[in-house]
Amino acid sequence: MNAPASRFFGATEPVRYVGPESDAELAYHWYDKNRVIAGRTMAEHLRFAVCYWHSLCWPGGDPFGGETFLRPWMHGVDPMAMAKTKADVAFDLFRLLDVPFFTFHDVDAAPEGANLTEQASNVSAICDVFEAKMEETGLKLLWGTANLFSNRRYMAGAATNPDPDVFAYAAGQVRIALEATKRLGGANYVLWGGREGYETLLNTDMKRELDQFGRFLAMVAEHKHKIGFDGPLLIEPKPREPTKHQYDFDVATVYGFLERYDLLADVKVNIEQNHALLAGHTFDHEVMLANALGIFGSIDINRGDALLGWDTDQFAMDVGELTLVLHEILKGGGFTTGGMNFDAKVRRQSIDPDDLLFAHVGSIDACARALINASAMLEKGTLERPRAERYAGWESAEGKAILAGERSLADVADRAIAEKLDPKPCSGRQERLEGLVMRSL
Amino acid sequence: MNAPASRFFGATEPVRYVGPESDAELAYHWYDKNRVIAGRTMAEHLRFAVCYWHSLCWPGGDPFGGETFLRPWMHGVDPMAMAKTKADVAFDLFRLLDVPFFTFHDVDAAPEGANLTEQASNVSAICDVFEAKMEETGLKLLWGTANLFSNRRYMAGAATNPDPDVFAYAAGQVRIALEATKRLGGANYVLWGGREGYETLLNTDMKRELDQFGRFLAMVAEHKHKIGFDGPLLIEPKPREPTKHQYDFDVATVYGFLERYDLLADVKVNIEQNHALLAGHTFDHEVMLANALGIFGSIDINRGDALLGWDTDQFAMDVGELTLVLHEILKGGGFTTGGMNFDAKVRRQSIDPDDLLFAHVGSIDACARALINASAMLEKGTLERPRAERYAGWESAEGKAILAGERSLADVADRAIAEKLDPKPCSGRQERLEGLVMRSL
Amino acid sequence: MNAPASRFFGATEPVRYVGPESDAELAYHWYDKNRVIAGRTMAEHLRFAVCYWHSLCWPGGDPFGGETFLRPWMHGVDPMAMAKTKADVAFDLFRLLDVPFFTFHDVDAAPEGANLTEQASNVSAICDVFEAKMEETGLKLLWGTANLFSNRRYMAGAATNPDPDVFAYAAGQVRIALEATKRLGGANYVLWGGREGYETLLNTDMKRELDQFGRFLAMVAEHKHKIGFDGPLLIEPKPREPTKHQYDFDVATVYGFLERYDLLADVKVNIEQNHALLAGHTFDHEVMLANALGIFGSIDINRGDALLGWDTDQFAMDVGELTLVLHEILKGGGFTTGGMNFDAKVRRQSIDPDDLLFAHVGSIDACARALINASAMLEKGTLERPRAERYAGWESAEGKAILAGERSLADVADRAIAEKLDPKPCSGRQERLEGLVMRSL
Amino acid sequence: MNAPASRFFGATEPVRYVGPESDAELAYHWYDKNRVIAGRTMAEHLRFAVCYWHSLCWPGGDPFGGETFLRPWMHGVDPMAMAKTKADVAFDLFRLLDVPFFTFHDVDAAPEGANLTEQASNVSAICDVFEAKMEETGLKLLWGTANLFSNRRYMAGAATNPDPDVFAYAAGQVRIALEATKRLGGANYVLWGGREGYETLLNTDMKRELDQFGRFLAMVAEHKHKIGFDGPLLIEPKPREPTKHQYDFDVATVYGFLERYDLLADVKVNIEQNHALLAGHTFDHEVMLANALGIFGSIDINRGDALLGWDTDQFAMDVGELTLVLHEILKGGGFTTGGMNFDAKVRRQSIDPDDLLFAHVGSIDACARALINASAMLEKGTLERPRAERYAGWESAEGKAILAGERSLADVADRAIAEKLDPKPCSGRQERLEGLVMRSL
Repeated sequence: MNAPASRFFGATEPVRYVGPESDAELAYHWYDKNRVIAGRTMAEHLRFAVCYWHSLCWPGGDPFGGETFLRPWMHGVDPMAMAKTKADVAFDLFRLLDVPFFTFHDVDAAPEGANLTEQASNVSAICDVFEAKMEETGLKLLWGTANLFSNRRYMAGAATNPDPDVFAYAAGQVRIALEATKRLGGANYVLWGGREGYETLLNTDMKRELDQFGRFLAMVAEHKHKIGFDGPLLIEPKPREPTKHQYDFDVATVYGFLERYDLLADVKVNIEQNHALLAGHTFDHEVMLANALGIFGSIDINRGDALLGWDTDQFAMDVGELTLVLHEILKGGGFTTGGMNFDAKVRRQSIDPDDLLFAHVGSIDACARALINASAMLEKGTLERPRAERYAGWESAEGKAILAGERSLADVADRAIAEKLDPKPCSGRQERLEGLVMRSL
Repeated sequence: MNAPASRFFGATEPVRYVGPESDAELAYHWYDKNRVIAGRTMAEHLRFAVCYWHSLCWPGGDPFGGETFLRPWMHGVDPMAMAKTKADVAFDLFRLLDVPFFTFHDVDAAPEGANLTEQASNVSAICDVFEAKMEETGLKLLWGTANLFSNRRYMAGAATNPDPDVFAYAAGQVRIALEATKRLGGANYVLWGGREGYETLLNTDMKRELDQFGRFLAMVAEHKHKIGFDGPLLIEPKPREPTKHQYDFDVATVYGFLERYDLLADVKVNIEQNHALLAGHTFDHEVMLANALGIFGSIDINRGDALLGWDTDQFAMDVGELTLVLHEILKGGGFTTGGMNFDAKVRRQSIDPDDLLFAHVGSIDACARALINASAMLEKGTLERPRAERYAGWESAEGKAILAGERSLADVADRAIAEKLDPKPCSGRQERLEGLVMRSL
Repeated sequence: MNAPASRFFGATEPVRYVGPESDAELAYHWYDKNRVIAGRTMAEHLRFAVCYWHSLCWPGGDPFGGETFLRPWMHGVDPMAMAKTKADVAFDLFRLLDVPFFTFHDVDAAPEGANLTEQASNVSAICDVFEAKMEETGLKLLWGTANLFSNRRYMAGAATNPDPDVFAYAAGQVRIALEATKRLGGANYVLWGGREGYETLLNTDMKRELDQFGRFLAMVAEHKHKIGFDGPLLIEPKPREPTKHQYDFDVATVYGFLERYDLLADVKVNIEQNHALLAGHTFDHEVMLANALGIFGSIDINRGDALLGWDTDQFAMDVGELTLVLHEILKGGGFTTGGMNFDAKVRRQSIDPDDLLFAHVGSIDACARALINASAMLEKGTLERPRAERYAGWESAEGKAILAGERSLADVADRAIAEKLDPKPCSGRQERLEGLVMRSL
Repeated sequence: MNAPASRFFGATEPVRYVGPESDAELAYHWYDKNRVIAGRTMAEHLRFAVCYWHSLCWPGGDPFGGETFLRPWMHGVDPMAMAKTKADVAFDLFRLLDVPFFTFHDVDAAPEGANLTEQASNVSAICDVFEAKMEETGLKLLWGTANLFSNRRYMAGAATNPDPDVFAYAAGQVRIALEATKRLGGANYVLWGGREGYETLLNTDMKRELDQFGRFLAMVAEHKHKIGFDGPLLIEPKPREPTKHQYDFDVATVYGFLERYDLLADVKVNIEQNHALLAGHTFDHEVMLANALGIFGSIDINRGDALLGWDTDQFAMDVGELTLVLHEILKGGGFTTGGMNFDAKVRRQSIDPDDLLFAHVGSIDACARALINASAMLEKGTLERPRAERYAGWESAEGKAILAGERSLADVADRAIAEKLDPKPCSGRQERLEGLVMRSL
């Protein structure tokens, strides 16, 4: 099988670092995996993962047209043989890109079983394949997940389905995927509740569905401990699509949900740029908020189009945006179990196999430039110094006393009157900071 | 003072109910305040309040042009005299509309003080005026609030300001407004954090600001108990504008915030249609979610324009949307301390005094039609019967056991395998329900 | 074939008018096809058409999940036999709904040919089927069209493709579809340029593509005359999706395009609510603008979701919006060749066959209510009288002289100075008009 | 007056080029005005203009709060003296930034007259001041314009007002501003129809208003020729705000309007990033389209926030976006009479005078970097070479014949059949091009 796979791509040798001045096209101009920045190699900082679904499973269709890619492994009669060919191509892709991690849904990798017994058997067969390849190549699994949204049975949700048997089927599928993730040494386990939401409120009992969802997650968390899986569970916020409204709307909503169902100890968030955008937030907002609330886990690296209202999942190429995100991640101490997963797909017109390589290479380089910029900004204090100055008043004794709960409203108000406070505003210096950031890119 | 005020509007007699068949224009065609529906009068159900700021204080300006309304009480030299004339016109408006409640910010009603001492004195003077008028007319206060966003000192926030002296000033202002609200018998006290957010993340420490905000609210809650004010505090979610991002983004976000800072016992939400829209939600979504989370308080009744990205605060006229909202409110038991506050303004081209009357009358009638529709739908079970059928499986013994925490993931998954579950989806019947709702309007 | 088809739907008898008071669910409560309003029957006014693609061809998939509907005619081995079964079900649907028109794309009705010769042959075979059924039932064709966007060959556009051979193939396909439309007595021929646009400007030569598109349409117009097809060509504006940007963005853009390529004599627009919404316009805006520019042709009746950024194509149920659209259409003289095509699909969870019936029935009733309302408003002059008053000044001699080009800037400016003009604004009366409209619904 | 003005800013010496390596903050790191790129100096390429309104006239208010800037020249009793002080500060700003152009509205610079006679006199007085300063400094006027949207009289539009006397007043005001622009040697004259649109269709006669607007522009064009002003008229497209809908929606709409009213010979467009964004377009889309349609004139350089639905007019700092825009402008031959006008304002929290300097400097540097990048990309053919390859088929004899109108639909279709065409799609190479652009920044 390796021979056809290695012939799928035009390139045969792993992409290498050549430096910014080189004109080589299929090469890393900034991503130098062994270069040490602020105490870690670039590979250790960025922890790139290539995803299975977009790169290996999507045929190029959209709501107005069918398949464009014509991947050979999607046209055959033996699902398991096709899955193995796909795995060959996948691991060749990982090899060519020279990244340390991959990610997958159960049904990306293994043929979907007609029932849970067959599902378990198929996933297990693919785990055999993966284990061998991982051992051979040193590649690791950033996270695994179960697809609880494509099958017709989940059309009205999985955990939030009006039918408790669907909930039960979903439980079975998650158990299989979670145990497979543990077996493969996955660093995290992800849940994206793609249809955990509603299409119309007219037929929806939201309170009941939220309770179902809370229960489901608690059961997954308990199972995680039971089987000794020690990575975190990661919820991936998204506001809508395919649903009209998804319960995991954004980081703030997920936080409230985790508080309500007492899940903060076991669950963090996996933040995606395009999902943030659809929710009306910037990517760095979501990361900063997750850091502030203590639930930052991992990120899906891609980009949406601010003028389009759906999840375009394009390859991230905006060094400026990525710099601010990495600045925030570095400030929070960098990734622990998380990483940067390329939840991104080439456009359906990008039908050449090597378009997959060019896309990842461009985006990996954009992230690498961003890391270099962010690290330099942190070192210089480009943003941190003015930020500290701005809030200096809260480091005073009175400021600290207020925050520590040592002052009542009346105390503070009385002081304001007694001292005849008439506070003078200071410039927010936004354009000055924007200019500094522009110069740091 | 009454004479000039009564001459401001062309109409002199309160608007009366005439029934749907009448051609009278300035009349209620559906709002019959004493009509009993499902055990309460329409007035008791709807608890309408007219707001001071849009109707009495806004001069008609927008970012591209100045004043258009030329209200006489906005052009004078003695601020307190102008405030009293404004109060005369205000109470004449309330009288003409024949509604039971009003709402105001401190600086809507009283001239803004140059310092907190003067602020307290001005608010107190206006409370004298209000008390007399309320006693005379029987009008009540739905809620009061403090404006912590217009004054230049608050340009970078009030509770979330980088300067703790601004926090202190805001504390002083809230104390005055909260105590005035108590004095006037207000049913609730509202906080809208118009500038509690950020303009750019480059200069922002979000974690610190959230902690400041949590502390501030806790202090207000404690003061509320101290002075014996027994209405709830209401937070009004809005995602942005004037800020780029406001911390009280939507109901879900506010819920998480209240959980985090342990404020659920004292604080509920005041939900506005236009704010819901800006956050990417429908009005009934926000109400249903607040009911589900147990934090529903009150509503601001207006309408945004889905094609415009700012808060247009137009008068609500869409009977269909209002029907679904009232259906949800009635289902939750109706208002307790809350009500329907007209946080709505006539367009800046609506320069005739009586445009204020026409606007409120149209919207009041739209709400009254909606109440009639919603009550009939609840009585017939138009939506509630199919909803109950849809989730019936969760009323089974197994469904209840899952929700009660009596099943583990393994239990449920094992059963799915043992019973060879292959759940069949049921139609969501969306169009059928939409047709039924259309016929109910 | 009739037997299986008639068994697809649960209902067997055509939906009938029962009046608004009846509780019958699958019945017309407002659409009384023979009722005469303002000189035409409701059927003549509304000219409803049911579309083939959404109702007969869509399997219920979305970008995150596959087929849900499991229509029997989509699962077989003989494409032509499947197409005939589909036609049987289609005509049964038309019969049950009792509407006068239908619409289709070439590949909706006939199996797509592997080349143009086969395409012509397949379309011809289905025309035989249609002709017989149309003769038998009296059903008519509102319009036909060619699908130039689903096949992989069109992934980069049809007329605007970088490859002139694709342009040629598209020309062949349009000729077949246009001639089939003529053969079936179609009242119009539609072009929707679903992929006539771009995915990225980086690889796009917009000027060249616009010229290609202009040329293509001119060729179609010339062919229309050559074959004696006397209905208009209709362009369907849409701003984006599947493309990032579609050249037929909205009515105003299409107008400029038709002016530029001298196509105003032969081409009008087919306006869709959901496309208007995606372009940032209301439905009635697009209709009013098309009337103003003299290019109004027909409408696609559906509804988008203002909170979702894609084409949801839901069934229109908002009587208020439809009333304003029909008011504008009636004001313009009503439909000539055009009509109201249900370019709407049931949600993918609406998997029961009869959901198709409920959906159309609800929307047909909403349109019928809207027609009744709009006609009454026009008769009373609810909006037309105040509108005429508002612009009365332009009916003065000076107003007319200015518009007739009889005044220069200097003339008018000199008069303004000489007469010391200081024009006083009048209220726009928006809320008053909104209240009147609300009462008219 | 010079003394106080020169003390307004902290900086006293013009900002100078220091190169990218310098750490100087208030300095140009990329904008080296005399550096020659592709045959022109950077100053000649970029033709920067500073605008009067945002930088000198806006007090820092927003819809939720008042003035924050407290500019000394906004607080006085003698409007003409204040206008002169403002002019002193303005020319000091221009001097410090060392840019070649400025722009203004009539009422920005001169006190608004109580009537047209006074208006003419005030504008004339300020022209005296400007003339002297321009002669002294060598500064030039990129364009002038009249404000037809702020005064209450224009609340329902200027040219499109229901009252022809408002049209006449507007004509008088434009004559004064156009003649002043000519007197000052302005290179262009701009019209932004801020209120030429509607707030509600309920009271609007769109056809009539479009005819009024067409007539108005024709009168201005005729007057331009009469007085011998030889720059173009520039229309500035914007889709909405302050109106719900503005007739000059976007470039495509303006093009259709100019065609309809036969104004293409005299009118071009002034394109703004933020307005493009509000209309659902990218900045480079609008520039490329204007080039394609032959109506490109000038640009307003700023940036909107894709997550906010209003005109934020922030200073442009995104080198990537600016590179693509300048690439398109250079490809079209560069500016002729047009230039880059900073229609941008500092945030209302940026209250330090020098924030104005930092903001312009950052944005000027971003534009300079973009120019350097764009010029290099054009020289290398980074985008132009693959673009030419992509469309090469249209340079064939058959491709040219089709475009030249030498082929009918039947000709082309017959060839497609005869040659059994089965065109194979080619990769659009989007990610590869995106990667190349990313590396070019």
